[in-house]
Amino acid sequence: MKLIADISIIPLGVGLSLSSYVAECEKVLTDAGLAPRLHANGTNVEGDWDVVMAALKTCHQRLHAMGVPRIATNVRLGTRVDRESSMDAKLASVKEKMKT
Amino acid sequence: MKLIADISIIPLGVGLSLSSYVAECEKVLTDAGLAPRLHANGTNVEGDWDVVMAALKTCHQRLHAMGVPRIATNVRLGTRVDRESSMDAKLASVKEKMKT
Amino acid sequence: MKLIADISIIPLGVGLSLSSYVAECEKVLTDAGLAPRLHANGTNVEGDWDVVMAALKTCHQRLHAMGVPRIATNVRLGTRVDRESSMDAKLASVKEKMKT
Amino acid sequence: MKLIADISIIPLGVGLSLSSYVAECEKVLTDAGLAPRLHANGTNVEGDWDVVMAALKTCHQRLHAMGVPRIATNVRLGTRVDRESSMDAKLASVKEKMKT
Repeated sequence: MKLIADISIIPLGVGLSLSSYVAECEKVLTDAGLAPRLHANGTNVEGDWDVVMAALKTCHQRLHAMGVPRIATNVRLGTRVDRESSMDAKLASVKEKMKT
Repeated sequence: MKLIADISIIPLGVGLSLSSYVAECEKVLTDAGLAPRLHANGTNVEGDWDVVMAALKTCHQRLHAMGVPRIATNVRLGTRVDRESSMDAKLASVKEKMKT
Repeated sequence: MKLIADISIIPLGVGLSLSSYVAECEKVLTDAGLAPRLHANGTNVEGDWDVVMAALKTCHQRLHAMGVPRIATNVRLGTRVDRESSMDAKLASVKEKMKT
Repeated sequence: MKLIADISIIPLGVGLSLSSYVAECEKVLTDAGLAPRLHANGTNVEGDWDVVMAALKTCHQRLHAMGVPRIATNVRLGTRVDRESSMDAKLASVKEKMKT
């Protein structure tokens, strides 16, 4: 099952500078063979449900191993079975509509 | 890894009455040995990360099998390694503070 | 415009014990004339869009005034214009379906 | 109060093609003087709390006026008072960490 997801990970108990943890999670996602697209409030990722979800679990485990005591993550998960979909196709569709 | 999650599943392409799909997902979570706590905007669940996440995947698969072409889910995921945590403990802690 | 919302406020930079801040936000929502329903991963609230949103802003302001340097909030917002809706009606509808 | 937000609007009851509604919301945000940055699962926006929130309300109103009977939106809201912040600064900070 193909999954298009948006992941926002918030490490708690490590102060206000969260970028090193977000960067580590980007590496985890990339190492999983995914091509995460970072934005200002999370990261977009697409792939097989199991691959994406395994990488997300690894993110939590990796951050805890780095000393993060608590993590609050928000994830948006999109699946569809009526046709193929992709992040590029979603973006192209909106941009096409914005022209009119 | 213990997970406390909040799941909000939104079926798309099946009109405006979503309750039968939400009810089906509650059954899936319950059948997974979890004890979901439904609220007006999602459901709370706690358990082993893999068990909760497998059940969430089953929810998507079940709803697609029921004819839902597209699903948009929002999930909040909480993990912590500094101490044991539970949904009851979280609620009790806030309610204790509300007395003062 | 009637709004049914679910608010999850995460204070950053104040350690791991967040319950006093969540409790304060419950008070803010209650003082706004709303009847928030706390759950393990957020709080449900319903009312006029402007009233709910003004209270949410006050939550952020109040927590910052309490010394919270940074806040990350996740909110689910539901509006509909086809018919009246309520949190009780949403819950009742799902529970009715769970019987079958 | 400066707000950095991520908005994901899901129109319900209008079938599976949502891009025209997402495009309309981008226009609303742009007309509000904001510079929304569309991604595959939402849009990033930053500005004064009141300006962003007024635009978000207008998005709901506009979509309902277009015939959308029900809307489910997920919003991530970030505020901080310890220092100035921006979407560009957040992104730059993570990218700097990814080099190491």
